[in-house]
Amino acid sequence: MRRAVCPGSFDPVTRGHLDIIGRSAKLFDEVIVAVLMNQAKMGLFDLDERLEMLNEATKELPNVRVESFQGLLADFCRDQGAQIVIKGLRVASDFDYELQMAQMNIHLSSVETLFMPTNPIYSFIASSLVKEVAKGGGDVSTYVTEFVERRLGEKFRAARAA
Amino acid sequence: MRRAVCPGSFDPVTRGHLDIIGRSAKLFDEVIVAVLMNQAKMGLFDLDERLEMLNEATKELPNVRVESFQGLLADFCRDQGAQIVIKGLRVASDFDYELQMAQMNIHLSSVETLFMPTNPIYSFIASSLVKEVAKGGGDVSTYVTEFVERRLGEKFRAARAA
Amino acid sequence: MRRAVCPGSFDPVTRGHLDIIGRSAKLFDEVIVAVLMNQAKMGLFDLDERLEMLNEATKELPNVRVESFQGLLADFCRDQGAQIVIKGLRVASDFDYELQMAQMNIHLSSVETLFMPTNPIYSFIASSLVKEVAKGGGDVSTYVTEFVERRLGEKFRAARAA
Amino acid sequence: MRRAVCPGSFDPVTRGHLDIIGRSAKLFDEVIVAVLMNQAKMGLFDLDERLEMLNEATKELPNVRVESFQGLLADFCRDQGAQIVIKGLRVASDFDYELQMAQMNIHLSSVETLFMPTNPIYSFIASSLVKEVAKGGGDVSTYVTEFVERRLGEKFRAARAA
Amino acid sequence: MRRAVCPGSFDPVTRGHLDIIGRSAKLFDEVIVAVLMNQAKMGLFDLDERLEMLNEATKELPNVRVESFQGLLADFCRDQGAQIVIKGLRVASDFDYELQMAQMNIHLSSVETLFMPTNPIYSFIASSLVKEVAKGGGDVSTYVTEFVERRLGEKFRAARAA
Amino acid sequence: MRRAVCPGSFDPVTRGHLDIIGRSAKLFDEVIVAVLMNQAKMGLFDLDERLEMLNEATKELPNVRVESFQGLLADFCRDQGAQIVIKGLRVASDFDYELQMAQMNIHLSSVETLFMPTNPIYSFIASSLVKEVAKGGGDVSTYVTEFVERRLGEKFRAARAA
Repeated sequence: MRRAVCPGSFDPVTRGHLDIIGRSAKLFDEVIVAVLMNQAKMGLFDLDERLEMLNEATKELPNVRVESFQGLLADFCRDQGAQIVIKGLRVASDFDYELQMAQMNIHLSSVETLFMPTNPIYSFIASSLVKEVAKGGGDVSTYVTEFVERRLGEKFRAARAA
Repeated sequence: MRRAVCPGSFDPVTRGHLDIIGRSAKLFDEVIVAVLMNQAKMGLFDLDERLEMLNEATKELPNVRVESFQGLLADFCRDQGAQIVIKGLRVASDFDYELQMAQMNIHLSSVETLFMPTNPIYSFIASSLVKEVAKGGGDVSTYVTEFVERRLGEKFRAARAA
Repeated sequence: MRRAVCPGSFDPVTRGHLDIIGRSAKLFDEVIVAVLMNQAKMGLFDLDERLEMLNEATKELPNVRVESFQGLLADFCRDQGAQIVIKGLRVASDFDYELQMAQMNIHLSSVETLFMPTNPIYSFIASSLVKEVAKGGGDVSTYVTEFVERRLGEKFRAARAA
Repeated sequence: MRRAVCPGSFDPVTRGHLDIIGRSAKLFDEVIVAVLMNQAKMGLFDLDERLEMLNEATKELPNVRVESFQGLLADFCRDQGAQIVIKGLRVASDFDYELQMAQMNIHLSSVETLFMPTNPIYSFIASSLVKEVAKGGGDVSTYVTEFVERRLGEKFRAARAA
Repeated sequence: MRRAVCPGSFDPVTRGHLDIIGRSAKLFDEVIVAVLMNQAKMGLFDLDERLEMLNEATKELPNVRVESFQGLLADFCRDQGAQIVIKGLRVASDFDYELQMAQMNIHLSSVETLFMPTNPIYSFIASSLVKEVAKGGGDVSTYVTEFVERRLGEKFRAARAA
Repeated sequence: MRRAVCPGSFDPVTRGHLDIIGRSAKLFDEVIVAVLMNQAKMGLFDLDERLEMLNEATKELPNVRVESFQGLLADFCRDQGAQIVIKGLRVASDFDYELQMAQMNIHLSSVETLFMPTNPIYSFIASSLVKEVAKGGGDVSTYVTEFVERRLGEKFRAARAA
């Protein structure tokens, strides 16, 4: 039984994330999407909203489940019996930081991190850019699912009305 | 008519920025220097001060004008009838982020981003470093124009007096 | 009159090259595709074959012409009255080398180099990889035009027969 | 059944390679070490020697077998029923090239490439450097197995005697 | 008399820092560890705590002393009669930013910056990661000295109790 | 007594090299410029010519001497009683390879490698580019000394006459 964890903030989940999750689901027996609860850094969406959007977006993938965690990713993986962390890698400059995290995690609890290259058509889609575009009223339908697009629209309409 | 946009924060404009603006002005019919109004991120200088310093610094360049914008750069370019964004590129590590922005912009409104390599003698001059040096009382006369140098002096003298 | 040069080996031209050439043709009045004659480095295709494939691939673009050159690119640009070199940039690691060339060229003859980001869907297509795939009998129809695909097939069939 | 391929030249295999192979063997059901037969590029060791050193070094790993291949890696993986390629990644600058290969391979035959970060203690050990050190008479015992060290010694003694 | 400065935040000092400091102490007559007082950025430890941990960790190194500074590093070096700044370099992506700082410093006061590669076994140890691990209750004994480990424990126990 | 080695091919020495050598001569008691004799890779200039150009270019620097070496740099440093290798670093992408060499050298004989950032005005000057420009008849007077410029002229005139 090979169990892999796809960690992230997912604020919100993008088609780039879903590409990594979907491809991982073909390679491993079970994939746990793990949403980091970061008390220091407020996001646009709260934890429940992020989980809802992820559950909606992965509902067709039977061997994928969505969880949240706080504390160390290494501890979460051990608790879940996961041997592998999967990280999407878009560009070389992401690598140096991710490498440090990977080496720390293998040192802390022997969990291996494997980097999966992002599909080039999603290589420019980051959650932060998607939020900026949505805030500016741009069309984000090719970057996120319809469900997430609607949620982004509600957030920013509410913000403009306030 | 080729119209190019040089976007940035320009907090404040440096000789590195002016090198890119001046060289762009030779290559295109019109160059619009576009100052991003970022409500989330307070700068050292407010928008009017930044515009004043840019207008002063580019007054000898007849085909350059200075504007401010908020929202999406892609929308600003379309409204201005500009087909091209020019970004100075100092080092390889800037590239990955800029590439994402460029691909997002071409996707949103077909505006092309062209990267112009910074003159090596300005390669280490970033607005943030210039402010740090000026704050510490260092000599910034080779990094900014005399006009900007005076404004930096006033800001930090005011800060120290406060 | 803005005249830009797109230099390269084009051994052979790929859809990635054609993307850069086509987008450049929209931004400048004239685009010269300049094939470097490199006596030290034998390619798969000889100069005439490369020119033929480029002419075929750009025949619908009225403001593009194909030339060959030897010696310094800076001299070629000056002789052609071109103020601008356009280079496609796929990844950050290309940048450091290209930056050196750009700075040398501006120093030698004031010609400016502008970097145009490659369309992500072509970001993994390099002539060298295309040749490797074609040699190994793989399908290259999404990387090169039909005309180039046929030429690659002929080359490698001839090589296998020999 | 998850079958992964670790491709390379292995001229000769280093402790860095063995680290990647051993860790992969824990994550997947079967690992095939695939030695590329490159007719254009002569190595220090011929194919049989490389295979012998790899077989010796992996003999304790029951789910690892060593093969050679020519042509496209994508074809080899399909023929072997392998869904995954594992590549060790030492430094960010390796990534851009490897990413191109990975994207080409997924495009050619849907095989996924996963990057595994090299253990930092092996991060500076490349086959090319090991050969240089051995040739210069330096001690390579911490970079390769005893068996490989002996083979390197024989090669360079033979070369000096010739 | 060659006097070198090792600047940093040291919040807290790690074994990676100590590796750079110790190796520098062998190469130069005197090494000054210089703790930047950054009023804008609150750390986990205050200045006195950082100095205490550094003094404890370097007490066996007779030609090392620990100081704090505010303002420009270039001014601090000149005041101390130091000709050299030593910076540890872990990964290539650190380099571009550090290079700008180095060039600014040589321009401001002729102080030279020399980059010393981090020992690979410490390459993944950054103060920020160490704090995250300690906060999450992970074992940091291989990343920091026993003294620092205790201090980290006290901080986070106090935080949890609060 | 701090003795530093500046290794390289110096085919030929450029003003970028001389900048590193001159600045090193201010920081260390003695600087040895070490020309690698590489039998596998023929250069434009033979060893004697390279040494002559280096001796000419450094004749005003009393604590600099020029040597050649073959085999391992680590061995050469130990034989010369040098504790330090100085390498100029122009761009981040040089770093990953240089880091491997540095770590190998410290491992082989405890010699430390320190990286000195190239002066930005020389950042685009590589020996290979200088030779290409000189071969193409371009003006290289700002990249090399007058003496080297003459030698380059002789080489390429001889080549053209042949």
